Amino acid sequence: MLDIINLDGLETLAEARLPRGTFDYIAGGGGDEWTLRENRAAFARLALLPRMLRGVTPSLATTVLGAPLSFPVLVAPMAMHGLCCDDAELATARAAAAAQTLFVASTLSNRSLEEIAGTVDAPRWFQLYVYRDRGVTRALVERAAAAGYDALCLTVDTPLTGQRDRDKRNAFRPRPGLSFGNFEAESATADLGAPNNESALATYIAHQWDAALTWRDVEWLREISSMPLVLKGILAPADATLAVEHGAAAIVVSNHGGRQLDGAPATITALPAVADAIAGRAEILLDGGVRRGTDVIKALAHGARAVLLGRPILWGLTLAGEAGALAVLEHLRAELRLAMTLLGAESVTSLGRDSLLRVDD
Amino acid sequence: MLDIINLDGLETLAEARLPRGTFDYIAGGGGDEWTLRENRAAFARLALLPRMLRGVTPSLATTVLGAPLSFPVLVAPMAMHGLCCDDAELATARAAAAAQTLFVASTLSNRSLEEIAGTVDAPRWFQLYVYRDRGVTRALVERAAAAGYDALCLTVDTPLTGQRDRDKRNAFRPRPGLSFGNFEAESATADLGAPNNESALATYIAHQWDAALTWRDVEWLREISSMPLVLKGILAPADATLAVEHGAAAIVVSNHGGRQLDGAPATITALPAVADAIAGRAEILLDGGVRRGTDVIKALAHGARAVLLGRPILWGLTLAGEAGALAVLEHLRAELRLAMTLLGAESVTSLGRDSLLRVDD
Amino acid sequence: MLDIINLDGLETLAEARLPRGTFDYIAGGGGDEWTLRENRAAFARLALLPRMLRGVTPSLATTVLGAPLSFPVLVAPMAMHGLCCDDAELATARAAAAAQTLFVASTLSNRSLEEIAGTVDAPRWFQLYVYRDRGVTRALVERAAAAGYDALCLTVDTPLTGQRDRDKRNAFRPRPGLSFGNFEAESATADLGAPNNESALATYIAHQWDAALTWRDVEWLREISSMPLVLKGILAPADATLAVEHGAAAIVVSNHGGRQLDGAPATITALPAVADAIAGRAEILLDGGVRRGTDVIKALAHGARAVLLGRPILWGLTLAGEAGALAVLEHLRAELRLAMTLLGAESVTSLGRDSLLRVDD
Amino acid sequence: MLDIINLDGLETLAEARLPRGTFDYIAGGGGDEWTLRENRAAFARLALLPRMLRGVTPSLATTVLGAPLSFPVLVAPMAMHGLCCDDAELATARAAAAAQTLFVASTLSNRSLEEIAGTVDAPRWFQLYVYRDRGVTRALVERAAAAGYDALCLTVDTPLTGQRDRDKRNAFRPRPGLSFGNFEAESATADLGAPNNESALATYIAHQWDAALTWRDVEWLREISSMPLVLKGILAPADATLAVEHGAAAIVVSNHGGRQLDGAPATITALPAVADAIAGRAEILLDGGVRRGTDVIKALAHGARAVLLGRPILWGLTLAGEAGALAVLEHLRAELRLAMTLLGAESVTSLGRDSLLRVDD
Repeated sequence: MLDIINLDGLETLAEARLPRGTFDYIAGGGGDEWTLRENRAAFARLALLPRMLRGVTPSLATTVLGAPLSFPVLVAPMAMHGLCCDDAELATARAAAAAQTLFVASTLSNRSLEEIAGTVDAPRWFQLYVYRDRGVTRALVERAAAAGYDALCLTVDTPLTGQRDRDKRNAFRPRPGLSFGNFEAESATADLGAPNNESALATYIAHQWDAALTWRDVEWLREISSMPLVLKGILAPADATLAVEHGAAAIVVSNHGGRQLDGAPATITALPAVADAIAGRAEILLDGGVRRGTDVIKALAHGARAVLLGRPILWGLTLAGEAGALAVLEHLRAELRLAMTLLGAESVTSLGRDSLLRVDD
Repeated sequence: MLDIINLDGLETLAEARLPRGTFDYIAGGGGDEWTLRENRAAFARLALLPRMLRGVTPSLATTVLGAPLSFPVLVAPMAMHGLCCDDAELATARAAAAAQTLFVASTLSNRSLEEIAGTVDAPRWFQLYVYRDRGVTRALVERAAAAGYDALCLTVDTPLTGQRDRDKRNAFRPRPGLSFGNFEAESATADLGAPNNESALATYIAHQWDAALTWRDVEWLREISSMPLVLKGILAPADATLAVEHGAAAIVVSNHGGRQLDGAPATITALPAVADAIAGRAEILLDGGVRRGTDVIKALAHGARAVLLGRPILWGLTLAGEAGALAVLEHLRAELRLAMTLLGAESVTSLGRDSLLRVDD
Repeated sequence: MLDIINLDGLETLAEARLPRGTFDYIAGGGGDEWTLRENRAAFARLALLPRMLRGVTPSLATTVLGAPLSFPVLVAPMAMHGLCCDDAELATARAAAAAQTLFVASTLSNRSLEEIAGTVDAPRWFQLYVYRDRGVTRALVERAAAAGYDALCLTVDTPLTGQRDRDKRNAFRPRPGLSFGNFEAESATADLGAPNNESALATYIAHQWDAALTWRDVEWLREISSMPLVLKGILAPADATLAVEHGAAAIVVSNHGGRQLDGAPATITALPAVADAIAGRAEILLDGGVRRGTDVIKALAHGARAVLLGRPILWGLTLAGEAGALAVLEHLRAELRLAMTLLGAESVTSLGRDSLLRVDD
Repeated sequence: MLDIINLDGLETLAEARLPRGTFDYIAGGGGDEWTLRENRAAFARLALLPRMLRGVTPSLATTVLGAPLSFPVLVAPMAMHGLCCDDAELATARAAAAAQTLFVASTLSNRSLEEIAGTVDAPRWFQLYVYRDRGVTRALVERAAAAGYDALCLTVDTPLTGQRDRDKRNAFRPRPGLSFGNFEAESATADLGAPNNESALATYIAHQWDAALTWRDVEWLREISSMPLVLKGILAPADATLAVEHGAAAIVVSNHGGRQLDGAPATITALPAVADAIAGRAEILLDGGVRRGTDVIKALAHGARAVLLGRPILWGLTLAGEAGALAVLEHLRAELRLAMTLLGAESVTSLGRDSLLRVDD
């Protein structure tokens, strides 16, 4: 069992276990990493105004697109959990199920979406990247439906990989033998032989994915699939409105963990205007910089229904495999419960902006 | 005698004298310790606008709930002074009396409330935590009344102990043999055998105290006791109003020294709106981050009648026992008198917001 | 070929290659270097609000005063490229041409303006300092016209050299043998024998240039030359208006890279009000602190048509001569293209303030 | 001759030459030294908006209470120049005269006010502290008038010495043999034998000066002397109004170099509201944190007629005696002239708020 003091501390522990290139690939962000830091800093600029003597025993349970969750924290889609532990996404999916929450499998998982679906019976979403070859894309969508995924989570902020200076410095490529589970072995690794001094993954993405994705592709996805559609990577209120108009069941306010456009606002900064634009017409999730139970509260108080947890899950996997990922989720749940109690808040479903205070520090 | 340059410097001196776990237990705060730091930082963001040529010889005397104080600084309730010196609360109570101010004895004192009351004849309050076993609670209240305590100071911000990462890292437990003076020896220490990697005190509190305290409990306390009631831990103006409506004679604007909900505002930040809500219907005290005479002035100018001093008292006890605690109080008194003179302020009872200036730094 | 991770990193690499005095002369700024730092810091305070699913393949091409540029980044006029590589401005001019952009030759180049014009057939501007001896000035202007320069870029912010503490500390003077290519050898170096403990260049400028330049001199330049006039160094909206009224075809919002008046605002801070004052009546360029593709976007979204890149060009020259300067330009182009794609912006000619977000951090 | 790069750098050089206690006494401030730092930081938060092509040859000359100054920088009154060089105030007074500016002699000078007046024929003011013994005070005033001082500069912000932690830590006392030149040797040094661990000077002041000074004392001074009265230490607009009403010819916006009430605003922060209150009815000077020519401009643009320079003068004295003090003044004059030129400002007498820009950094 992994003994956790707080989630931030896990990063340092994981750094000692992973190859430099792998650690940097996971921990790093785009450009000057302003957005990466700002995701954390913006949470710290929000204060919470606790209420006393309310005698609450806080309820953490909620639903996301109808799926019951024991607490409002999902596992964010992330590529290649095999970088962190041998069981890769199977470990993470089982941890999510054990914590009674939802796992979002990435297109770039090391295990196939069918393996992931088969390892445990629990709610799950499939995160989709759209390939230039629409046949490849359609096949992924059909396989996800067949494997019982409950929703399709389309990442909309990655026409190309962000400016990842660390990966370029490290000429990062995944260790040999680590392949993308959703594709034939040969095609999946062919492109990873990138030129020197470039990120192999960035090269793969530039070659394979469709950099010119549009709202029409969203419509096409809705035509070829009846799965509810979640759009991940919305920051502008106008895009939130378009998402609703194009039938998204939910959106994820996300800047891809600060890994795409550096200079994009922190997600907690972008959330309020997005929530106003959505006006209840779709569910809102948020990821980026969530490390404390109080961060979850701040996101929910600003209009999110739940948050997605990213890097800490991978640090947990690195340090203790499935048990580590589960310990991370349980730690955050414990922090959230305690923070709700100290805030005097009854339920995660009824948090509002009255709990928030902007401090000019 | 302890020679003091300033109160901040005492912390470093005390750190060298105390076991790591004990020092961290006293010095630390909740979560990322944002609120702990913010208590100090928020004072620093307030400037004072001095007036000249007023020829003042400042008067520092005031009263709190009718008790005369030689200056507007009380000794905050804190658990286990025995961590710092053998005479524990007896030393502190005598120091407070020597400084002609008021001592607030904690439920979790190492000496019994009767011993404390007997050591010196001076105004004193009893700080109360409410036990699940209401018989235990009622007994404490009745003993406090019998021992001549002048008020009951109910801590309302601690349904559970905050997220104390330092204590968890240190698996903090008080040194063997140090027991809670208000309870039978066996019951008091029974729960301190916490599992590894947990704070023994947090475990004790979770087991013994009532996490579901409500305003009805406040009413119950007023029924079983005629002592004036002070509610400690109010930050929201709405709770200040409720406090008045439930008969509180005074409130303490407090975030428990940054030890409970991390992200709660600095007390000096929360004070103005609370003072507006109280509108003179109860007395207002403040604790959290007071280290300089100018901090006392800033709190009083914002509507507090007096402040409570916490950690520096324990550093004084650590360094020089009763004489150390007294030296801390006398140092702060000297700083306050000098600052009042330089500000051109006649009396601590007439400080107003006209002395304050917000600087955007 | 120079392998570039990001432009900021080049400064450290170049520092290891150059004599201290030369490095400081290039890297340094005026006074406390507040403006130097602020040029970067002000960019960082602006967030970008990316739009999704727009399917853009961004167009980077633009024109400046009718000259076609492959992307909106010019090479800023800078003195003495010979400090960095033997081919001096010839290398830089060829790099600019290879990148299909515009080179601005400095009055204080080490190669003559004719040599620079002859080295490559490409659009070019001549940057002018006005000498006390108007005959010298007129000769420069006539030579520039004869050599096919497309515009005259008058620097208006340098009646005297700024307070350059680093140069004074280093008693900076260019290495012996490095002469100003636009002047007779003897006159060009005569004044560089400055007294000890003074910057030789500052002394030269104080002796040779006209510190009392006025708008009448602008009119005089328009009389003696039919080349379009660009005024470089405008920060105040009122001066922008005067520039238009005196027939400037373009202005450069510039604080001379933080090298002149310390305390002058960052150029990106000054830009919006200047753009409002210009109101489309002249073209607007900006320099100062541009290091990232996202900085280019922020400048264009605020009303600039293009930016000028300064110091990083000299670091490129230092590290790899012409190829280094070209690599710098190509790196910035690649960053800009990627950032435009991630922002969902179609063309550099249609960026607007709707892409910008002010973050209070 | 002292070769100066900038005035800030002198402090480090002087630190190496002076005993720790002496350096700290001069360099230090009150309490946490927030005001000390803020005096500098507040200047840095103000940007200057330079104008171009104005062809100015700036005029630096001005007058203060009718006395002609070659530039708007006076030498601030400071105690005990003998701590820095043997000629003490004689050196400084000669340096001020050589720079064609005004010297303000302190009550606590090491040389007598008559010696200072006799050393050079130049405008001079006498800074006054009011002693409990009004006979002592009256004698000082009469001697100043007899010695040809042009004005009386009453310090109003020092009823007691500020909280000087450094002096207390160092148990600072001036070196033996250094006496106050304005008093009989025995009386002047009698009180400097302070108890251990206290500042000798603070003790002297507490014993000798009148901590209860009022506006009536100002009236009394006007009755016993016809010298124009300057009140030094005004920060509140209401006190500025009172100063005018009580016949002050000038005020100095000052926080005593951050040495008195810590938490008092920076002088450049306090100046605008004070200038509004004065509304031209008295001359306004400012001291505190002036280190750069641009600082002088910022003060004048906000309504000051001139500034007083303090600590850097003492560093100059320390490093090179009279020549050092003169070099400091000449350096600041050169910076001011260059900054005026770069700002495009014609005269120090016509600077206005249109040159200022508030930057949120």
